[in-house]
Amino acid sequence: MSPSLPLPTAAATPVLGTPHDLPKPPGLTWRVQSREPVGYDVNIVRGLLAPANPVLARACGADGQQPTRCLVVVDDKVHTLYAERIRAYLDAWRVESFWKVLPGDEAAKELDSAVEVTEAMTAMGLLRRTEKVVAVGGGVVLDVAGFAASLYRRGVPYVRVPTTLLGQIDAGIGVKTGVNHGTHKNRLGTYYAPETALIDPEFLATVDPRHIVNGTAEIIKMALVKDAALFELLETTFAGAGPQSLAAGGPAATEVISRAIAGMLDELEPNLWEQVLERSVDYGHTFSPSLELRADPPLLHGEAVAVDMAICVALAHHRGLLSADDTDRALRLMHTAGLPITHPVFTTDLLEEALRDAVKHRDGFQRVPLTDGIGRVRFVNDLTREELGRAREFVRQRAAAQGVPEDAGVLAAAS
Amino acid sequence: MSPSLPLPTAAATPVLGTPHDLPKPPGLTWRVQSREPVGYDVNIVRGLLAPANPVLARACGADGQQPTRCLVVVDDKVHTLYAERIRAYLDAWRVESFWKVLPGDEAAKELDSAVEVTEAMTAMGLLRRTEKVVAVGGGVVLDVAGFAASLYRRGVPYVRVPTTLLGQIDAGIGVKTGVNHGTHKNRLGTYYAPETALIDPEFLATVDPRHIVNGTAEIIKMALVKDAALFELLETTFAGAGPQSLAAGGPAATEVISRAIAGMLDELEPNLWEQVLERSVDYGHTFSPSLELRADPPLLHGEAVAVDMAICVALAHHRGLLSADDTDRALRLMHTAGLPITHPVFTTDLLEEALRDAVKHRDGFQRVPLTDGIGRVRFVNDLTREELGRAREFVRQRAAAQGVPEDAGVLAAAS
Repeated sequence: MSPSLPLPTAAATPVLGTPHDLPKPPGLTWRVQSREPVGYDVNIVRGLLAPANPVLARACGADGQQPTRCLVVVDDKVHTLYAERIRAYLDAWRVESFWKVLPGDEAAKELDSAVEVTEAMTAMGLLRRTEKVVAVGGGVVLDVAGFAASLYRRGVPYVRVPTTLLGQIDAGIGVKTGVNHGTHKNRLGTYYAPETALIDPEFLATVDPRHIVNGTAEIIKMALVKDAALFELLETTFAGAGPQSLAAGGPAATEVISRAIAGMLDELEPNLWEQVLERSVDYGHTFSPSLELRADPPLLHGEAVAVDMAICVALAHHRGLLSADDTDRALRLMHTAGLPITHPVFTTDLLEEALRDAVKHRDGFQRVPLTDGIGRVRFVNDLTREELGRAREFVRQRAAAQGVPEDAGVLAAAS
Repeated sequence: MSPSLPLPTAAATPVLGTPHDLPKPPGLTWRVQSREPVGYDVNIVRGLLAPANPVLARACGADGQQPTRCLVVVDDKVHTLYAERIRAYLDAWRVESFWKVLPGDEAAKELDSAVEVTEAMTAMGLLRRTEKVVAVGGGVVLDVAGFAASLYRRGVPYVRVPTTLLGQIDAGIGVKTGVNHGTHKNRLGTYYAPETALIDPEFLATVDPRHIVNGTAEIIKMALVKDAALFELLETTFAGAGPQSLAAGGPAATEVISRAIAGMLDELEPNLWEQVLERSVDYGHTFSPSLELRADPPLLHGEAVAVDMAICVALAHHRGLLSADDTDRALRLMHTAGLPITHPVFTTDLLEEALRDAVKHRDGFQRVPLTDGIGRVRFVNDLTREELGRAREFVRQRAAAQGVPEDAGVLAAAS
């Protein structure tokens, strides 16, 4: 953290001992040091909105006796589907709820939305430490509300209740907040931990199939870079009932979600502030930001990640890091999940440009995670334009062989 | 940090052991825990811009050999006075400098300014970890640039070079960043440590007298709540040469500045994130935010703090916490420093309203620091409207006895 200053640094603060001693010569120096403790819980809790379930109430600091208040931030879809139940639940626990409804689409993930959330805090006179912000919704609402909570009076506590699959296993359980700015995704943001993230898989029942598939991409990512067993589990699950089985609940679905969360938290915990820029969870996130910004009609985050992962699978294969068989399995799993593996926007030029952007974000190095066999990762810094072009062509041919036109956007699940 | 959740929390992450074990029942739970190390240096360095002085260059990561780049954020006044020297210095050390000039007045302390600074980072393609933002100027520029640095890509390193007395002994050496929003001071902000704060008292030579006096208020604050020896030193210094002597340099000035910084850092270090809301450095900052927002013509921060401190001196006196003699000394020191001790905007109604706002900011309690004798502090939570009215009247009469009309704004230094 600290630069290589030429001056010796004193241990701690007070430098002048006696009341009227002579001043020290110029060059006086102090070092301020501290460690900020950060901690949060992630819980899988079915039936979160059942009136008898105390988990959400306690996360709001309510005990059912003393009245308290909170600000509920939701997206319009969650508002339509769940506002009544949420309000009834909070009323029952004597939590007076104030509401801020945001659009849930990516276009709303902008600074103005976050400012509006802080204005809602001002309007209700949110107490700085004891009254919570409760964000219920998809990734956009969680990112925006978390960003707002991190800025308001330099930070107020908040609770995350992700309702989408992507939120439940990825965006909703970390500490990153943010908004897009200009043409840049997450250009402005903070690292700001919630007090709690509450994961109720029952919300998935109202998530539309495309968004379930979207979340599946991040689960496949965890499997590819960290968890070969999860990869096999996904192969079995999807071959049987398709990715929709994740929304339907049941033991396999719970195991997939649990394992994806466990893997994600295991990666996040030692590197919450991303001081290490080589992050295996960045797999599939090297080229996809550029694709996500340019695809028209727009792609969902997980769809763009899948297209990126397909390139990375090919890159690993061409470097001898992934066998022909495992390469096939990886591409087939994505395809079976209903994810796109190619996109016409992804020219070699764009891949190269996206990589340049990633290098900037990763402080001067590519640091591209590639699979080193399924379930393991290694980082490379020397990808060439030629490799990118060859990988793109490889995936294109595989997709064509499967009868998938390149501009198919979201593929239909094969099974 | 963590709420009282009803579920037992597991030690760390992986919950599922063998590849295909049965899923855990609902209610799975994880606890993510970490500590973010934060550290920064504060150095008093005379002759910071002298080409031979390596301190600023090293803070920018430059060694004079390898070229590097930085973004310099300054206010218009610093730009006029110092841009040429700063640029020549950086050129000499092979630091390519990009520039963002902001207005230095309080009106510019708004979200738009911070966004503009981030856009300047985007325009130059600032590398995320190795290229620094260097903020040179008064409190507004430091707060805005620090805020921008904390948000851009969720945080890039920055260096603070405060040029005003207030910045050098208070606002410029902590970790708070922020902007005003709506009618609220510092409504949006972050805790975000610089890598280094570099204090060159030679900048004070170009600070106008009113702004020197402004900074004096925060030094008097440190003396009142923490450092009786500093109080005596100020009495001696100001009685001789007035607060301007701080700008003139010399041993007494350096000792005053060193001692004020040491006291401030000593208070800040154990409570960087203000997890403890009883902060002695909040002395004089209970009523002043409301005054600062309403005074017309506007008051400087330190001027409003002085008016607040005068009320607090009277409150302490009426509670038997401050002798009649020490009460006189405190009010006289502020007056001698050239600070206002009354203001017509401060009606009892406004004092009460300001206290209500402070209670909200301090999570439901007054937590008002009062002097418990000069150099010591105690916190009270039971101030009444009657006490506020009586304190106000006490100060008014003292001011009148000194021949100061209530609407005098900034008083002329007495000596």
